[in-house]
Amino acid sequence: MPSYTAPVKDMMFLFDKLRDNKNYNELEKYNDVSSELVKDILEEAAKINQNLILPLAKIGDEHPAVLENGIVRTPPGYKEAYKKYIEDGWTSLSCDPKYGGQGMPRTVSAFFDEMISSASLAFKLYSELTLGAYNCIHHHASDEIKDKYLPKMVEGKWSGTMCLTEPICGTDLGLLKTKAVEQPDGTYKLTGQKIFITSGDHDLTENIIHLVIARATDSPKGTKGISLFLVPKFILKDDGTIGPRNGISTGSIETKMGIKGSATCVLNFDDATGIMIGPKNKGLSQMFTMMNLERIVVGIQGLGISEIAYQNSLSYAKERKQGKSNNSKSQNGNADSIIEHADIKRTLLNMKSIIEGERALCFWLSQQTEVSLNHNDQKIRQEASDMVSLMTPVVKSLYSDLGMEITSDAMQIHGGYGYTKDQGIEQLYRDNRITPIYEGTNSVQAADLVFRKLSNKNGNIVNRFLDMVKAESEGKNGKVKSFSKELGHYLEILYKFSDWIIDKNKFEKDDVSAAANDYLKALGYVSIAYSWIKVLDVSFNDYEANKDFYTDKINTAKFYFEKVLPRAEYHYKSAISGSSNIMKFNFI
Amino acid sequence: MPSYTAPVKDMMFLFDKLRDNKNYNELEKYNDVSSELVKDILEEAAKINQNLILPLAKIGDEHPAVLENGIVRTPPGYKEAYKKYIEDGWTSLSCDPKYGGQGMPRTVSAFFDEMISSASLAFKLYSELTLGAYNCIHHHASDEIKDKYLPKMVEGKWSGTMCLTEPICGTDLGLLKTKAVEQPDGTYKLTGQKIFITSGDHDLTENIIHLVIARATDSPKGTKGISLFLVPKFILKDDGTIGPRNGISTGSIETKMGIKGSATCVLNFDDATGIMIGPKNKGLSQMFTMMNLERIVVGIQGLGISEIAYQNSLSYAKERKQGKSNNSKSQNGNADSIIEHADIKRTLLNMKSIIEGERALCFWLSQQTEVSLNHNDQKIRQEASDMVSLMTPVVKSLYSDLGMEITSDAMQIHGGYGYTKDQGIEQLYRDNRITPIYEGTNSVQAADLVFRKLSNKNGNIVNRFLDMVKAESEGKNGKVKSFSKELGHYLEILYKFSDWIIDKNKFEKDDVSAAANDYLKALGYVSIAYSWIKVLDVSFNDYEANKDFYTDKINTAKFYFEKVLPRAEYHYKSAISGSSNIMKFNFI
Repeated sequence: MPSYTAPVKDMMFLFDKLRDNKNYNELEKYNDVSSELVKDILEEAAKINQNLILPLAKIGDEHPAVLENGIVRTPPGYKEAYKKYIEDGWTSLSCDPKYGGQGMPRTVSAFFDEMISSASLAFKLYSELTLGAYNCIHHHASDEIKDKYLPKMVEGKWSGTMCLTEPICGTDLGLLKTKAVEQPDGTYKLTGQKIFITSGDHDLTENIIHLVIARATDSPKGTKGISLFLVPKFILKDDGTIGPRNGISTGSIETKMGIKGSATCVLNFDDATGIMIGPKNKGLSQMFTMMNLERIVVGIQGLGISEIAYQNSLSYAKERKQGKSNNSKSQNGNADSIIEHADIKRTLLNMKSIIEGERALCFWLSQQTEVSLNHNDQKIRQEASDMVSLMTPVVKSLYSDLGMEITSDAMQIHGGYGYTKDQGIEQLYRDNRITPIYEGTNSVQAADLVFRKLSNKNGNIVNRFLDMVKAESEGKNGKVKSFSKELGHYLEILYKFSDWIIDKNKFEKDDVSAAANDYLKALGYVSIAYSWIKVLDVSFNDYEANKDFYTDKINTAKFYFEKVLPRAEYHYKSAISGSSNIMKFNFI
Repeated sequence: MPSYTAPVKDMMFLFDKLRDNKNYNELEKYNDVSSELVKDILEEAAKINQNLILPLAKIGDEHPAVLENGIVRTPPGYKEAYKKYIEDGWTSLSCDPKYGGQGMPRTVSAFFDEMISSASLAFKLYSELTLGAYNCIHHHASDEIKDKYLPKMVEGKWSGTMCLTEPICGTDLGLLKTKAVEQPDGTYKLTGQKIFITSGDHDLTENIIHLVIARATDSPKGTKGISLFLVPKFILKDDGTIGPRNGISTGSIETKMGIKGSATCVLNFDDATGIMIGPKNKGLSQMFTMMNLERIVVGIQGLGISEIAYQNSLSYAKERKQGKSNNSKSQNGNADSIIEHADIKRTLLNMKSIIEGERALCFWLSQQTEVSLNHNDQKIRQEASDMVSLMTPVVKSLYSDLGMEITSDAMQIHGGYGYTKDQGIEQLYRDNRITPIYEGTNSVQAADLVFRKLSNKNGNIVNRFLDMVKAESEGKNGKVKSFSKELGHYLEILYKFSDWIIDKNKFEKDDVSAAANDYLKALGYVSIAYSWIKVLDVSFNDYEANKDFYTDKINTAKFYFEKVLPRAEYHYKSAISGSSNIMKFNFI
């Protein structure tokens, strides 16, 4: 089993030194969230993840969730762990105090998301979708519904799902067939089949609140006829307690490559009673409130799995002796620890420079997210929202893809022991492999970025982002300057690349589609470099206060700028050769 | 279960049109290997792989090899299939007719290796190591031993293994502890433990011939004290028939991420009787005869798995309807096949351009291998051998890594259906994941390339290779010229990169170690481009004879030059920033 120590030190560094968003710091509701409080929370979070949740990963892999006589059973130990987990209040961390939540900002809850992704992604998923459903209900439903459903969800006694996919539609939800027939009492009866439903059924909670998209009988075809419904596993009685079973059954659960502890269900809705949430035929945009926050969390999952893969690679590299390094001092036929080999050091630094850069970028994004949701000034909210919307597909795709690179490198460091089950490294690789797929495949994210996020009714969002990065980077003094200059080179590339995309979008959309993944990656690598500039600035200015810590940061950043950031240029070069040759290709 | 159609057409194209090595064509022993004969062989090979072997992949994954009461049982159906497989003579394809083989050149047997890797890698491994052991015995053992062991191995009634790794040594074989004590009759008694032994035990053959490296009691420490021994599972009687069981037992078999049908064994040698092969203390170099050929085959495994992943992605992309493409003509809310989307087309062409380029490069390498082994002129043999030795780590590493890229892209095209077990795509991804690890991890290959292969006692091998590529590429006329010019740009980079490596190798070995993987990849992408130049030359010259086929080749090559080859430059740029920052890094 892999070991894990939550990176509380790095998280507190970000919280203490990189909380630099003026608008975020103006949010009154977070005035009380002090550094001491956050440190206490993270230390408690570290304990539960390291001690209680980490062992569930291997158990879930060896004893997957099963469907027995129509009932889904989670792996051994999940129930007991979940009970403790909700008793300690971890589901409610970022929820509204009005419904029993602790009201912590995303700057804190994102750290928790990372930790639990490191410990056990499969276990995490049982509460993750509850938070997604919570956010959607909190944002779109009436007070009556909120009062009825949210407290139990915040408490973790009830869980939630997002029911979108059907056999013939995943990406293209306009094709969906699930029907909703209005009843005299204003409720709806839903009939149809939903697939790939994470935590669609399980034995951890008393009730499951499904958020389902479906088409009312009098709604138009396509995406403009989709409404959102709340469909509980057990219908509530008038007093809010649990009543009769609703018309929902579990058809089967998927056998998957990884995250085997998580139940991925086929759900059959058969005249199931549902309540419409928000306005009719606007279901897709409501669902996307939830989806967008979820997508960032999927990126964080990739980060969390990368972190545990790195930690175990590092300790194995220190321990395993093999071969002599170029500067070996070992005698008598003894071998050196493999960490003495330049290539292994390079691989470890590649992991570390990506992980710490991602964490810093994510912390910046958490601040933006809070501003976009909570600032008093509508204009400031909108500007932050544009940044969040730009970065959402980037974080989802890049972090999940780099999670594959990092877990793969962890296997290589472990050699044959990485491919066998004993050390649990191959499980990290299998578990992470879902992240580039679910919540919209990474290519769908890239299409979203280039066709909807770069430039929209609010203007040229990406140039606004690049201008901000440029101004901030060039405004740094002293030793940061050489890094700013290097970043400047890649910013120029990205300006050109963005102009190319926006221009091609007018007449050569296929060029844009074919370039989308490359563009996303180039933007992502530059965004991570932007975070490193922030980190470097603190590291140089604050150097004397904590020399070892900051030396580590500075050298890690150097690696990122020398060895990782150059990838952005290849993506540009590959993309701008266009698509005419691709589109005319006749596959036989 | 994935479907598979062997790419006989592309293979015959190579055999008919790219058999351009003058020295190979001078080899008298292959005078009779006509195009008609090869076509017949490949068509029969296609049948057995498509019909008999392909279904074993899924069976092996669901019913892994098991160890029961000390005996390894292969998955259901393996025994029957293996019987048919050896009856039809497939193990003997490339073996010496003197021992019952069919004497086919590697230009043909490599095609078979690719097909069976597509069909079932786990099943393939049971005979693959027999061929490795055959090659080693054939090359190094006395006539007496050859006469005694080879006919049964060629027939497939006995199989073979390579026993190198021990718990404390994988890459660094100098650390090995297995002891060999000489007996009065000249045989040895071997004692020690070997791990990760592919096909170390199983129920498919009557006997298993282990080739084991061990240290004689009076041999020095380190790699200079290693000898090679033939240690059969059952000791032979004087008449060559099977006698008593030798002192070898199976301690356990590994539970692995993939290739579950293949038994990976811990073997305990306990006073096991062995015969020394070749001169004492020269075991490692003898073993490397076998290892080098094996490494090329591992590259071919990656190619084979890539091919089946591509075929299934292509058919799924034609069938699955989702979303509207940029140029959609579909009406009434219907969706387009996903192959209409530019990004999916791009992904498919990425696969195809890599696969066909790899196959062509491999065909070139097969010709070189035959020349290196069989030409009458020692100088010509040596030159070919240098090319083979240069390309071995490149093919092993690049093809196995790109196999991961291609099987991963296949999963993305399949979306959620790629992550669940039904379609068998995730199995391709898991099965291929061993190829970057075994027979020396890809980083070990890269170190081998930069420290031993680039430049050695025979001179600057890589410059000789680059000069050859340059002369050939620049010598092409007509429409190939624009491609040659593009390749010229990357050749210049590679000349610089090679000089940088050779120079750094004098005083800054860590720079070389840290750059090794990047260098291998840059050389590999350029080598594949070289193969595409050959293919393009035929395609333009022969265009009128087969327009559709050659149009396909030309457009696929264009994609490779526009979208894949630029990666070489990123690898150069990333590498030459050196390693001083890496080496001084203090991991805490």
